[in-house]
Amino acid sequence: MTDSTTIAARAADIVAGLTLEEKASLTSGADFWSTKAIDRAGVPRIVLTDGPHGVRLQREGSDHLGLADSVPATCFPPAVALGSSFDSELLERVGVALGEEAKAEGVGVLLGPGINIKRSPLCGRNFEYLSEDPIVSGVLGASLVRGLQSEGVGTSLKHFAANNQENDRMRSSSDVDPRPLREIYLRGFQRVVEDEQPWTVMCSYNRLNGVYTSENPWLLNSVLRDEWGFNGVVVSDWGAVNERVIGVAAGLDLEMPGGGGRTDAELVAAVQAGTLDEAVLDVAAQRNIELALKAQAGADADASYDVDAHHALAREAAARSIVLLKNEGALLPLSASASVAVIGEFARTPRFQGAGSSLINPTKVDNALDEIERVVGAERVAFAAGFTLAGSAEDEAAALRAEAVAAAGAADTVVLFLGVPAADESEGFDREHIELPAAQLALLDAVLAANPRTVLVLSNGGVVRLSGFEARVPAILEGWLLGQAGGGATADVLYGVVNPSGRLAETIPLRLEDTPAYLEFPGEFGHVRYGEGLFVGYRWYDARSMAVQYPFGHGLSYTSFAYSGLALAADAAGITATLTVTNTGERDGREIVQVYTALAGSGVQRAPQELKGFASVALAAGESRAVSVQLRRDELAYWDIRVDKWVVEGGDYTVAVGASSRDIRLTGTVSVDGDTVRLPLTANSSIGELIADPVAGPMMMQAMAAMFGGSEEAGSADEGMEKMMASFPIGRLASFPGMGVEPEMIEQLLAAANADN
Amino acid sequence: MTDSTTIAARAADIVAGLTLEEKASLTSGADFWSTKAIDRAGVPRIVLTDGPHGVRLQREGSDHLGLADSVPATCFPPAVALGSSFDSELLERVGVALGEEAKAEGVGVLLGPGINIKRSPLCGRNFEYLSEDPIVSGVLGASLVRGLQSEGVGTSLKHFAANNQENDRMRSSSDVDPRPLREIYLRGFQRVVEDEQPWTVMCSYNRLNGVYTSENPWLLNSVLRDEWGFNGVVVSDWGAVNERVIGVAAGLDLEMPGGGGRTDAELVAAVQAGTLDEAVLDVAAQRNIELALKAQAGADADASYDVDAHHALAREAAARSIVLLKNEGALLPLSASASVAVIGEFARTPRFQGAGSSLINPTKVDNALDEIERVVGAERVAFAAGFTLAGSAEDEAAALRAEAVAAAGAADTVVLFLGVPAADESEGFDREHIELPAAQLALLDAVLAANPRTVLVLSNGGVVRLSGFEARVPAILEGWLLGQAGGGATADVLYGVVNPSGRLAETIPLRLEDTPAYLEFPGEFGHVRYGEGLFVGYRWYDARSMAVQYPFGHGLSYTSFAYSGLALAADAAGITATLTVTNTGERDGREIVQVYTALAGSGVQRAPQELKGFASVALAAGESRAVSVQLRRDELAYWDIRVDKWVVEGGDYTVAVGASSRDIRLTGTVSVDGDTVRLPLTANSSIGELIADPVAGPMMMQAMAAMFGGSEEAGSADEGMEKMMASFPIGRLASFPGMGVEPEMIEQLLAAANADN
Repeated sequence: MTDSTTIAARAADIVAGLTLEEKASLTSGADFWSTKAIDRAGVPRIVLTDGPHGVRLQREGSDHLGLADSVPATCFPPAVALGSSFDSELLERVGVALGEEAKAEGVGVLLGPGINIKRSPLCGRNFEYLSEDPIVSGVLGASLVRGLQSEGVGTSLKHFAANNQENDRMRSSSDVDPRPLREIYLRGFQRVVEDEQPWTVMCSYNRLNGVYTSENPWLLNSVLRDEWGFNGVVVSDWGAVNERVIGVAAGLDLEMPGGGGRTDAELVAAVQAGTLDEAVLDVAAQRNIELALKAQAGADADASYDVDAHHALAREAAARSIVLLKNEGALLPLSASASVAVIGEFARTPRFQGAGSSLINPTKVDNALDEIERVVGAERVAFAAGFTLAGSAEDEAAALRAEAVAAAGAADTVVLFLGVPAADESEGFDREHIELPAAQLALLDAVLAANPRTVLVLSNGGVVRLSGFEARVPAILEGWLLGQAGGGATADVLYGVVNPSGRLAETIPLRLEDTPAYLEFPGEFGHVRYGEGLFVGYRWYDARSMAVQYPFGHGLSYTSFAYSGLALAADAAGITATLTVTNTGERDGREIVQVYTALAGSGVQRAPQELKGFASVALAAGESRAVSVQLRRDELAYWDIRVDKWVVEGGDYTVAVGASSRDIRLTGTVSVDGDTVRLPLTANSSIGELIADPVAGPMMMQAMAAMFGGSEEAGSADEGMEKMMASFPIGRLASFPGMGVEPEMIEQLLAAANADN
Repeated sequence: MTDSTTIAARAADIVAGLTLEEKASLTSGADFWSTKAIDRAGVPRIVLTDGPHGVRLQREGSDHLGLADSVPATCFPPAVALGSSFDSELLERVGVALGEEAKAEGVGVLLGPGINIKRSPLCGRNFEYLSEDPIVSGVLGASLVRGLQSEGVGTSLKHFAANNQENDRMRSSSDVDPRPLREIYLRGFQRVVEDEQPWTVMCSYNRLNGVYTSENPWLLNSVLRDEWGFNGVVVSDWGAVNERVIGVAAGLDLEMPGGGGRTDAELVAAVQAGTLDEAVLDVAAQRNIELALKAQAGADADASYDVDAHHALAREAAARSIVLLKNEGALLPLSASASVAVIGEFARTPRFQGAGSSLINPTKVDNALDEIERVVGAERVAFAAGFTLAGSAEDEAAALRAEAVAAAGAADTVVLFLGVPAADESEGFDREHIELPAAQLALLDAVLAANPRTVLVLSNGGVVRLSGFEARVPAILEGWLLGQAGGGATADVLYGVVNPSGRLAETIPLRLEDTPAYLEFPGEFGHVRYGEGLFVGYRWYDARSMAVQYPFGHGLSYTSFAYSGLALAADAAGITATLTVTNTGERDGREIVQVYTALAGSGVQRAPQELKGFASVALAAGESRAVSVQLRRDELAYWDIRVDKWVVEGGDYTVAVGASSRDIRLTGTVSVDGDTVRLPLTANSSIGELIADPVAGPMMMQAMAAMFGGSEEAGSADEGMEKMMASFPIGRLASFPGMGVEPEMIEQLLAAANADN
C-alpha cells in the first residue's frame, strides 16, 4: 500500500466520523494563512503561504490583506527570469530549495508556481509568469512542482485559469474560444497536472466565459479532474469566492482565507435544505484532510536550510536567466582591467522582485555596483546614480545626468542600469505602456553621446522598448527581475564569469500597438475578448509576418554554436529529434536548442510554427554533443471543436531546430499518423464533405451527374459553380423544388454512407 | 386612412377568411421567383427577383438554381462602385431607375440592396457590398431603398445579418460580440430600416452566434421588429431555411424558393400538434398578403423605361464611382491630342460585374477601348491585349507582352487595364489572396519599363495590391466593377470629361497580413470569431497606427479644394458641422467632405476616429460654398452591454473634417450631453466604483479611512495599493476576516447609496 492510498484511506475514515458542521469547517481557512484543525479527529492545521519564488511567511496578525512583512527567505529570481533559462533541471533545483525553506518554516503548501500565459506585455503580474508559450510554461512549471514536492511540501498551481490581466481581475470574464483556451491557456496547466500532480490548484479571481473560475464545474470538475486526473485540492485565490455553495458544488474544496465561519454555515444550511448534496461536501472535506495529512507527513520540525547555499543557487539561477539581447563588436564580456562607469540607481538599489503577494523579505541583497567593484577593483569603478527612483524635478535630473555624462566620458566602458520603476509593476494593476521613464531615456541618450561603448542592463518585470534608442546601444543585457542575488549574477555575465544562455520566453515587440491583444486589453464592463485567438506571442508576429524587436527564443552567447545532423523519428509517443550541437567558439557555453513544428496544408488554423520542445546543453569550447529532444504526441494535437477532443492531424510535419524562433538552423520533415475523426454524415453535411467521404463520394458524384449533367448553368465559370455547390448542405437541396431532390433521396444517401462508418 | 392602413386592414380581413393550409401556403414561394396567389381571397402572386444593381428576371423554368439567363436589363455599377461615390442623391436616382425597370418587368420586389460590412477583402461577395463602414453602408443603402420604393417596387435589405464571407456560408456561425455586432454589423441595417422601411428584409444563410439567422427570434423579432420597428416581410435567402417551423416561430415570414409544399405541411402539422401558435402563422400570412397587395398597388402593366437614359445614368454613376488613387505629375487627365497605347484585354472585354445571383444580362456594354477611340480618334490609339482572360502558356504570354511593350514604347502615353479575373470573384466562394495574376504583373513591369507615362486602370470587385510595383506607377484609377457603361465612364475620367470624385469606401492595405480579420477568416468547423471586434477597416489601421496603401476615404481630383471656417453646434438631434469648401483649382469638380468624430478619454473602447457623416459637393472652379453635415445623435452612441442599450457618452467630442480619413483639414470640439447610465450598486460593485459614486463615495472614503488608516500596509507603493483595492468588489471584503467588515455593513452601505439612485 502506497503512502497516498494510506492517506486516502485514513482521510476517508476521518470524514466518516465528522459532523456536517465539521466537514463544512474543513473547507475554509482558519485564518489568513492556515486551515482548520480538528484535533479529536486527527486533522492537523497546515500553513499555506505565498510563493512563488520564495517563502513569504507572515508574522501573525500584522495586517488585513496579507501583504505585510514576512520572515526572511531567499528571494529566488521571479518567474519572468527563470522562464528565460529554458532549463528544467535548474528550475527543479530551485524548486527543491524552495521546498527546503518552506519545510524549515513549517509551511505545508507554497502558493506557486504561476504559469499563466503572458497575453499582453501590460499585465501587471507578468513578472510572476514564465512565458507567452504554453510548452515553456508547462515544462518549467512542472520542474518547479517536481522539485518542491520532492521535499514533501505541496505546491499550488495558479492562477487557474485564463487570468491574464490584473485590471478588474476579481470580476472580469476572460472570453476565450475553445481552441485558444485549450491550446494556449490550459495546455501548460494540463501538462503540470498530468506530469506532477501538484497538491493543490489555485482557482483564479476572474470569470472564464462568464463563470467565476471558483464556481465553474466545467473547469474544476470536467476538465481538471475528469479529463486530467487531478486528485488534489482546489483552493481559491485569497478572496476569490463569489458564492460559496455554488463553488463547493462546482469542485472548489477550500476557501481562503475563509469567511470567519459565515460561509461554512451557508454550506451547512444548503445541505440541510437539500440544495447541496452532502456527498459533495464529504469529498471536499476528504480532499482537505488528505492535503493536511500529506503536509503533516512531509513536515519536519528540525528542518533548516543553508542560507548561503541558497543565495548561491539564486545567483546561479539569475545568471542563467539573463538574456544577452545584443552585443555589437563583442563589446561584452568586459575586461576586468578596464575602467568602467557604472551608471543608474538600479546598480546600487536593485529592482529584483515585483510588488504584491509575491514580495519576499530577502535574506540578503546583492547589488551590481558592489559586485562589479569586487571583480575589477573599486579603483577602476566610477558610479553615478543618473536618476532617482522616485523621479526628480528637471533641474535635479539634469544635474544627475551631467554627473553621469562626466563619469561615462572618463571611463573605458559604461554599464548603464535602466529599468521600470517599482511603482509601475505590481500585482493588482496593469501597466499602461511599455516605455522606460522619460528621464531614463534622456540619460541613455546623453550617456551614449558621451561614450558609445555603453552596455545597457535592464531591470523590468514586463518587456520594455527603447523607443528610438535601440539602434544606438551596442550591447544590451535583459536582466528582468533577478532575485536577491541578481547583482552578482549581472557582474558574472558582464565579465564573462558566466557565459549568457538566457533566451526570451516572450517576444519583445517593436511597439505596443503591434502586440496581439492591443485592442482587446483589458476589456471593459466585465468582459475581455481574447480576440487574437490562438495567435498569442510569437504565433501572432509570425502569422502576420511582422517585424519584432527581438523574437521569441532570442538570446546571444559569448561563444558560437553549430547545429548539424538532424534526424527525426516518429512513434506512438511522438517525435524524437536528434542532432549534434558543437561549441565552435573559444569559450565554454550553454546553448538552448529549440524545436518547433509546423504542418503545411493543415486542415485547421495553426501558427506558422509552434515550440514543442527544448533542451539546455552545456558545451566546453570545441565540444560536440548529440542532443535528443522529445516532442510528445499529445503536444502535437489541436483541440477539435467538432468532437471536443485532442486530435493529432496526420501528415508530414516540419520540424525546425534553431537558436531562436527566427534563427532556425536545421529543418526536416517526419510523417506522423493522424487520429481518426470520422463524423456521421447528416443533412447538414455539405456536398463537398459528401464528395470527400470514401463511401458517400461515388454515390454523390453519380447523383450530381444526374442532376446537373444535362442542364446549362450560367453565371459563373464552372469552377466557381463547383465551389459554390460544394458548400451547400445536402439537405438544403430539397428546398429547391425545380431540382427534383426529395428529402427521402437524401435520407437514403446518408443512411447508405453512414452504414459503413 | 392611408394606403398602408387600408392595405393592413384588407390583409387582416383576408387572413380571417383563410384556412390553416392556405395561411401556411402563403409563407413559402410558389416557385423559384414568385409567391403563391389565392385567387378566391384576392391574394395576388408577386415576383421577387435579384438585384441588387439590375433586374435579373429569369425566363421561367430554365434551371434549378436560379442562375441561368435573364431578360435584358441595365447593369448599373455594382455596390462596390456605387459606395465609392459617397453620394446619396446619385444612389437614389439609381434606385428610381431600378424601380422603373422592375416595374416594367412586372417585378414586385427587387432583392437588394446588400449592405453587409466588408470585414475582409477576401469576401467573394464584397463587390455586392458598399463599404467597410456602417454609416456609409446605411446612408447609401437607405438612398437606394428610397429611390426604388418611390416607384412602388419593394426592396429586400440583405443579407441580415453578419454575413461577411462566402466560405461555408450556409452553416458557418458568425461569432460576434455585442458591441461590434450593434455598432458595426447591424448599425447600417438599423439606419435603413428606421429611415426607409424596406418592404422586405432578407435573412442570410449563416448562423449568428450559433443560431441560424432564419430562425433567430432575437434578431428577427426583438431587434428588427421590436427595437427598430420593422413592419415588413422577412424573407429567407434562397435556400436559407433550416427548420421551417422554428423559423416561422422566430419571425421568418416567407421561405424562398419554397419546399414544394412539403414545409408548408410541416407548419400545418405543427399548428395541429400545438407546437406552433396559429396566431404566429396568422401574422406571417398577413405580412405576406400586405406585401403582395403593396406590390399589386405599385404594379403598372404599361410601365416601360428608357433604355438609353438608363445607360446614360449608369455611365454617370460609374464615372462618379471611379477613384483616382494616384496622379503623379498630373499625368491625368490625358490630352485628346496625344497618342495613346491602350493595353490589356479588359479594355476590350470589360469586367463590369461579378458572378452569382447578381449577374445581369445587360442591355448593352461599352468598352473603354471604343470609348477612348471615340474621344481621341482611332488613329491615335494602338491596342494590345497584353494578356488573355483565360491565362496563357508562357510563350504566348511573352508574345502578348512583347506586343504590348512595342505599343507602349511607341505611344505618348499608356493606359493599361489590369484586374482580377472573373473566375476569382464570385458569390459562393471567397478569394484566397489580393494579388493580381502574375502574368498581369509581368506585363505591368514590362510596360512601365517601356513607357513610364503609364496610367493604370484597375477592374476588380475586391481590393488588390500591386506588390512591389505601386511606387513605379505614376497614375492609378481604381475602376472597381463599373456596370455596363463603365467603358465610357473610364474614358470620361481619363480625358477629364468628368473630374473624378470617388473615394475609397474601404481601405486598401499594404498586405493581406495587415488586414484586421486575417487570422480569423473564414474560420473553421462552422465558426468564425470576429476577434477584431469593433476594429474593422480603417478603425483597425488607425487604432494600431499602421501604414496602409491608400486610406479609407482617399481619392484625388483634377482640381483642389480648400476647407475653412468650421463651426460646430450640438443639440438634441446631434451635431451640426458647418464649413466652407472652396474649389481652388481651375477645373470644376466635386469634393466628398467627410466628418469624423472622436472622444478623447472615453470610458469605452473606441476607434481613434469614426465617420459619422459626409457630403458630396459640386463646385465650379473658384467657387466657394457653405456645407453643412448633420451627425445624428444616434450615431454617436455606443452599445452599452451593461444595460443593453445605445448610450451617448457625454463629453467634448472632436469633430474632424477632411478629404480622407488621413487627410484631415479642420478639427474642432463640441460638447455633447451624455445619456445617464446609473446602475444600482451591488456587492459586486468595486470599491473604485463606490468611491466614484456621488452618494456612496463619501461614505466609502470614511469607511476606508477607518479600515486602513492606522495600519501599515507593506509591499507596494501606496498608489499601487490604491489601484489594487479600487478593483476589489466591495462584497469580497467580508471574505477577509481580519478586516472586520461584516456582510451587514456592506449591505447597509449599498442600501444607503442606492436609496438616492
